[in-house]
Amino acid sequence: MPIDSLELLFRENIRRMKPYVPGEQPQGGKFIKLNTNENPYPPSPLAVRAIQQAAETSLVRYPDPLATAFRIQAAEVLGIDPDWILCGNGSDDILTIVTRAFVGEGDALRLPYPSYILYRTLAEIQNARYEEIFFDKDFRLGASFVAAGERLKLAFLPNPNSPSGTVLPPQEVLALAEQLPCPLLVDEAYVDFAEHDCIDLVRRNPRVMVSRTLSKSYGLAGLRFGFLIAHPDIIAMLRKVKDSYNCDALAIAGATAAIGDRQWFAENRAQVLATRERLSRGLAELGFAVTPSQANFVWCRHHDYPAEELYQRLKADRILVRYMNYPGWGDGLRISVGTDAQIDACLSLLSSYLTASAPPAD
Amino acid sequence: MPIDSLELLFRENIRRMKPYVPGEQPQGGKFIKLNTNENPYPPSPLAVRAIQQAAETSLVRYPDPLATAFRIQAAEVLGIDPDWILCGNGSDDILTIVTRAFVGEGDALRLPYPSYILYRTLAEIQNARYEEIFFDKDFRLGASFVAAGERLKLAFLPNPNSPSGTVLPPQEVLALAEQLPCPLLVDEAYVDFAEHDCIDLVRRNPRVMVSRTLSKSYGLAGLRFGFLIAHPDIIAMLRKVKDSYNCDALAIAGATAAIGDRQWFAENRAQVLATRERLSRGLAELGFAVTPSQANFVWCRHHDYPAEELYQRLKADRILVRYMNYPGWGDGLRISVGTDAQIDACLSLLSSYLTASAPPAD
Repeated sequence: MPIDSLELLFRENIRRMKPYVPGEQPQGGKFIKLNTNENPYPPSPLAVRAIQQAAETSLVRYPDPLATAFRIQAAEVLGIDPDWILCGNGSDDILTIVTRAFVGEGDALRLPYPSYILYRTLAEIQNARYEEIFFDKDFRLGASFVAAGERLKLAFLPNPNSPSGTVLPPQEVLALAEQLPCPLLVDEAYVDFAEHDCIDLVRRNPRVMVSRTLSKSYGLAGLRFGFLIAHPDIIAMLRKVKDSYNCDALAIAGATAAIGDRQWFAENRAQVLATRERLSRGLAELGFAVTPSQANFVWCRHHDYPAEELYQRLKADRILVRYMNYPGWGDGLRISVGTDAQIDACLSLLSSYLTASAPPAD
Repeated sequence: MPIDSLELLFRENIRRMKPYVPGEQPQGGKFIKLNTNENPYPPSPLAVRAIQQAAETSLVRYPDPLATAFRIQAAEVLGIDPDWILCGNGSDDILTIVTRAFVGEGDALRLPYPSYILYRTLAEIQNARYEEIFFDKDFRLGASFVAAGERLKLAFLPNPNSPSGTVLPPQEVLALAEQLPCPLLVDEAYVDFAEHDCIDLVRRNPRVMVSRTLSKSYGLAGLRFGFLIAHPDIIAMLRKVKDSYNCDALAIAGATAAIGDRQWFAENRAQVLATRERLSRGLAELGFAVTPSQANFVWCRHHDYPAEELYQRLKADRILVRYMNYPGWGDGLRISVGTDAQIDACLSLLSSYLTASAPPAD
């Protein structure tokens, strides 16, 4: 078979797909990375120690398929029952499992716009449609988000949202869930930096699911660990779809220790929130329009300077932020909350670009 | 919405599915585990050290989406180019990615019978059909394995096979691939314990893919790391389907060190093969019919004693083996190769059961 026809062996929806492109991860050189919303601080030392210990004892056997140790620890922290938790290889794995369980070929997945690009990809891999509903100007969602839809099987709601960093309060999310004709997954990847969360809604409406990750607020992006909170009948069905051993032994050990270390969590969160305030204020002082953020990043635009140009100049000066351009909605910069020193370096460079290109005062 | 109708929200194929049940992993008590084909020896100390090191440095950032360090190291060991390798969260992740890329709703997946039960599950999750082709008595595959099939999109061939431990030689696999009207994935989870492998076929026929795992021959079942060897055009398409960060930073570090430690590998392999011979001989001496194995387990049945009863008695005596019953084909015991001491304990118990229940000699 000639090599140029290999592509024809694949499903047509896969051939059509553009690949999802993760944020730049430069492997060489020294960059200040403010582009993929990682935590700027190392994770809990208890997590590191638990992993190093597990590396001595737990590599040769298959891991616990249900990550029971983590579920028990997380359940205690969150005030729920372990049977309401499903663990995944990062919350991307959770989103994949949920999509595969609810959304078949020709079905539809609903999501807000702009939000996490991966949701589209998940629909495309299923050969399903996606319906993007624009956020209002104040980042609320109108009636079209909850309207009936042909073969609508699932809705995603990132809350806080990316790239905006905005949130819908729990009572509004519940109202959406009550009106939606399909289950609602609330993606709480960034919720630990927000004021409220939606876990309680899962108990009030069993068609609400909440996903979490340890990548952001626990400083464990490299570990790949996320989880879902949902009604046990939902969890039981989702277990059929997940890979048997989707979480490895080291990740289970590290995640269990990390979520148990409440002191690390509280201190880290307080620091990130303080630096977010410093970043938001600094950007506003430079004339940026800054969307108030409840996440560990800030979305901003400048009326006089193209966002893409600022991104390129920062990159040339070895600071990576995320330039995002959403057709029909607009572009801007998403800047992750780093350390105070990293943020000061970023603000200082931005200031120098803006000053240098400002019209000379006479 | 009443809770008893939650199930109705799911896709119909998911509702119908029976969940895949992994081999028993007792969490408490002391068992000799000879039921899930893990390696009885701890992994390479270089892998343990690499993980412990990575836990200090690599948790806070997202991992390399393409696991480049591993691909470079594995490519050197296997004599191929890194672009021919796709890494996965265990080889189950690889099988999942490949199935999702080639097999849509209503399509068909072909597999031998009996073989790895997960293949069926992967078809079911896609709402696809699976066609099971019985092995001949000598564990060869006849013309029906390569016949045309309606909407046939992919074939799986575990080689060595489980539960039989048998192999098809590479030239026979190539002949199957040349006749098959669809791509062929050769699942080489156990190949490091066999005499030959099929990597070279990938170069000779770009519709052949080969999957590998570090769970068995590298003693890293707890780490979840597997990979696929395929033509770069195939790899490029599969990357669109995988989760962006499907392999975590610790697994990449551990797997890279493990596959680089050729001395550990050679010594471990020699030991497992020697103990496999000890196990096969011991079972034959007890009157078992033993299928000659090229894997790290042995498939056997006894003409006079029901396999399920022997499994239950061993379990009561705290040795776990795998009892398997394939409707239309038969049942038997699949016993993993443990340490010499574990195998001797198992043989000694089996001997005592057989002797005790033998008709008294007069």
